[in-house]
Amino acid sequence: MAGTPLLDELRAALGTDAVLTDPDLLRTHQRDEADLCPAGTPLVVVRPRDTGEVVAVLRAAARHGVPVVPQGARTGLAGAANAVDGAVLLSTAAMTEIREIDPVARIAVVQPGVVNATLAGAVARQGLYYPPDPGSWESSTIGGNVATNAGGMCCVKYGVTGEYVLGLEVVLASGEVLRTGRRTAKGVAGYDLTRLFVGSEGTLGVITEVTVALRPAPQESLTLVAVFDSTAAAGTAVARIAADGLTPSLLELLDQIHLRAIEAYQPMGLRTDAQALLLAAVDTGSRAADDLARIAEVCTAAGAAEVYSATDAVEAAALLQARRLAHAAMERYAAQTYPEGNGGLIIDDVAVPRGALAELLDGVARIAAECAVPIGVVGHAGDGNMHPNIVVDRADPASVERSRRAFDEIMRLGLALGGTCTGEHGVGLLKRDWLAREIGPVGVRVHQAVKAALDPTGLLNPGKVL
Amino acid sequence: MAGTPLLDELRAALGTDAVLTDPDLLRTHQRDEADLCPAGTPLVVVRPRDTGEVVAVLRAAARHGVPVVPQGARTGLAGAANAVDGAVLLSTAAMTEIREIDPVARIAVVQPGVVNATLAGAVARQGLYYPPDPGSWESSTIGGNVATNAGGMCCVKYGVTGEYVLGLEVVLASGEVLRTGRRTAKGVAGYDLTRLFVGSEGTLGVITEVTVALRPAPQESLTLVAVFDSTAAAGTAVARIAADGLTPSLLELLDQIHLRAIEAYQPMGLRTDAQALLLAAVDTGSRAADDLARIAEVCTAAGAAEVYSATDAVEAAALLQARRLAHAAMERYAAQTYPEGNGGLIIDDVAVPRGALAELLDGVARIAAECAVPIGVVGHAGDGNMHPNIVVDRADPASVERSRRAFDEIMRLGLALGGTCTGEHGVGLLKRDWLAREIGPVGVRVHQAVKAALDPTGLLNPGKVL
Repeated sequence: MAGTPLLDELRAALGTDAVLTDPDLLRTHQRDEADLCPAGTPLVVVRPRDTGEVVAVLRAAARHGVPVVPQGARTGLAGAANAVDGAVLLSTAAMTEIREIDPVARIAVVQPGVVNATLAGAVARQGLYYPPDPGSWESSTIGGNVATNAGGMCCVKYGVTGEYVLGLEVVLASGEVLRTGRRTAKGVAGYDLTRLFVGSEGTLGVITEVTVALRPAPQESLTLVAVFDSTAAAGTAVARIAADGLTPSLLELLDQIHLRAIEAYQPMGLRTDAQALLLAAVDTGSRAADDLARIAEVCTAAGAAEVYSATDAVEAAALLQARRLAHAAMERYAAQTYPEGNGGLIIDDVAVPRGALAELLDGVARIAAECAVPIGVVGHAGDGNMHPNIVVDRADPASVERSRRAFDEIMRLGLALGGTCTGEHGVGLLKRDWLAREIGPVGVRVHQAVKAALDPTGLLNPGKVL
Repeated sequence: MAGTPLLDELRAALGTDAVLTDPDLLRTHQRDEADLCPAGTPLVVVRPRDTGEVVAVLRAAARHGVPVVPQGARTGLAGAANAVDGAVLLSTAAMTEIREIDPVARIAVVQPGVVNATLAGAVARQGLYYPPDPGSWESSTIGGNVATNAGGMCCVKYGVTGEYVLGLEVVLASGEVLRTGRRTAKGVAGYDLTRLFVGSEGTLGVITEVTVALRPAPQESLTLVAVFDSTAAAGTAVARIAADGLTPSLLELLDQIHLRAIEAYQPMGLRTDAQALLLAAVDTGSRAADDLARIAEVCTAAGAAEVYSATDAVEAAALLQARRLAHAAMERYAAQTYPEGNGGLIIDDVAVPRGALAELLDGVARIAAECAVPIGVVGHAGDGNMHPNIVVDRADPASVERSRRAFDEIMRLGLALGGTCTGEHGVGLLKRDWLAREIGPVGVRVHQAVKAALDPTGLLNPGKVL
């Protein structure tokens, strides 16, 4: 009952309907979508509606020395939103206001709980474009996207979430409200605190408002598929597309395990005999047909067995939909491989320089064989950012151990190839050790110093990232 | 003679030729190009050649409690590189190695003293493009560009320096070497320390290596000039170009004072009877002619008296050159207005949301009249980022006072219009008070906490920014 006075204070500040302790609800809020990450038992879920209520939550939690874990839609894949024991889970689910869309300044101002697809749709109706499109875009929130610096399929041409964040309102651990950044196209007034909060996974403050940059609507895109007899050849094609000066608006890779999983999940005539499939799109207007033809040539020269263009927008959309189903299809595949709820998926995330992509793909295949675990590979080939997805039998300690070993080997390989341990999913709980290895002792010390400067008592999302 | 033991240590570490105390040389290194900013008397200029020597300089300076001021080419416009009394001026002039250009990863790795134009030329020879193009690009260094997050004319389409910085090597005040960021297209491993150092004006660490992202070479551009009878009409045209979904690769404004100053400096047939001139370019390939025609239509509808397209690349280059001469021409104008070295120029830098550009331009004209000082306006209209340049008689305290008042009024107006006190030149010494006003007490406190976390003894560039 240590929490009771805190709960009373929260109810007084937010009203009883925004302070939730129902055990089922606590359980559904306990973790994000990362497999094999620990999650504690929270005290309460709170749903503040505005900045003032977030301030009240942080002040109350600080008074009682109770940690606060910010949560968006809990679609994260690194455990960053997982509960810690006794924590206040601060959900932004009730902060869903789109405050402004300005077509001249090309900005939008939103509360953090606005769903990515909702914002994207709202600006599209005004002829504008909010590019960041993480796989979770239909359910994940802008606040969560910003807190994890989410990527997606558009990044190869349009960049990640952080490149669209102009300014933030953040409630600090002290309960003070900080405004960072600006509404202008350019600005260099002081340290770039905006980017410090982007990707900080709720460890430095609670984002309560986001000002994002928008672009004019892109032109229609043309799409092709290239089928390869080896994943490494597909990797080589990606490197040559970049070397050739081409900038596709999408360049995704699916390996055979994924092709088969998707086809089993939703039959759509994919070439399940292929070792790898590259999906490319261009949106360069009147140049698009030429650009697509050049990509086709490069793929053929790199060894593609077959290249075909989508004949119309419907076929192109179907191909994109196949790619979007990869995650769900692999979860189904894992569940069917190890029934009774034992089939799990460790969704990894590694990025290497484009030129090292073929080597990464070969290496992952070798690791899968050595560790005797199924690993499917899918991802944003054009960015060198791949998701090796390891299928694990949660009921079998040996399978879990082999999966963890494969995970570590992939991380080791990625760093050895000049890469990073996370291209877009973040560190959370899953990759704290690998972050430390990647950034080294000086990097860790600087991270700790920055964390201590912003959150000296460790109130916010303790144990995550660092 | 307090400095003598330090000088001995520096000479022992770097060799005598890299430790310079010649009074003339100290004097030329005393300040950057900002007018009316104080500069102290330095102890020494050091020119380390590599990271190890930078470490040696910082360790020695820390032992003796002597401040260190990092300097690139001293082309800054806010006094950030100005000496403080007794300081070690750490020049990166001898760190000029381009270590790598990788066309597949689309990155370059350089030492900080590489001149912007040198890098731009080197990557262009490989069919690549390093966009950031500050006015000083022929002399300013990549290290200085990163430390100030420099802008330029390309930003309206291609963004500022920070958007191209993937990773850094930084020597901290402790003498430790920190590596931030990555070589990959995407990466979210830990806090974005790269962006924390970008724009921190030498107050958090000394940049010793920069990894930048490159783009494929842009397509050829087409250029037009629109002549306006009022600056506000030109501002309206800019807002409408944005609202129309157009993205020019350049959209610059020159007012009558600048047109006349440039024409006097180097006659090139500019329309000196115009109140304002908009210079626009598009590099959208086969769409370019259509896009340029639409920009012309928008300008005409917004009240342009005349619009004409450059007939060829030579004429387009001449128009761009006219714009590039604006700074030098205004300095000449100031020198001729107040001879005997008394004519100075306060080069201001303010950015507002594009929709407020017309209001900003009207306001600056009103302020010039009220304060009875000549103010010419030039700048990156497409970003809402203008440079109101105030001509001052340094020998006349009344003129200096009126100029400072005009400067303050412009800053106040910029903030009132939802803008920022600096779009691209930075804070340095010139705008510390305005930074504090813009970011408020919570912002200042967070800045101080970050500074203390990275540089607890205040060794690096003391008194700048904060």
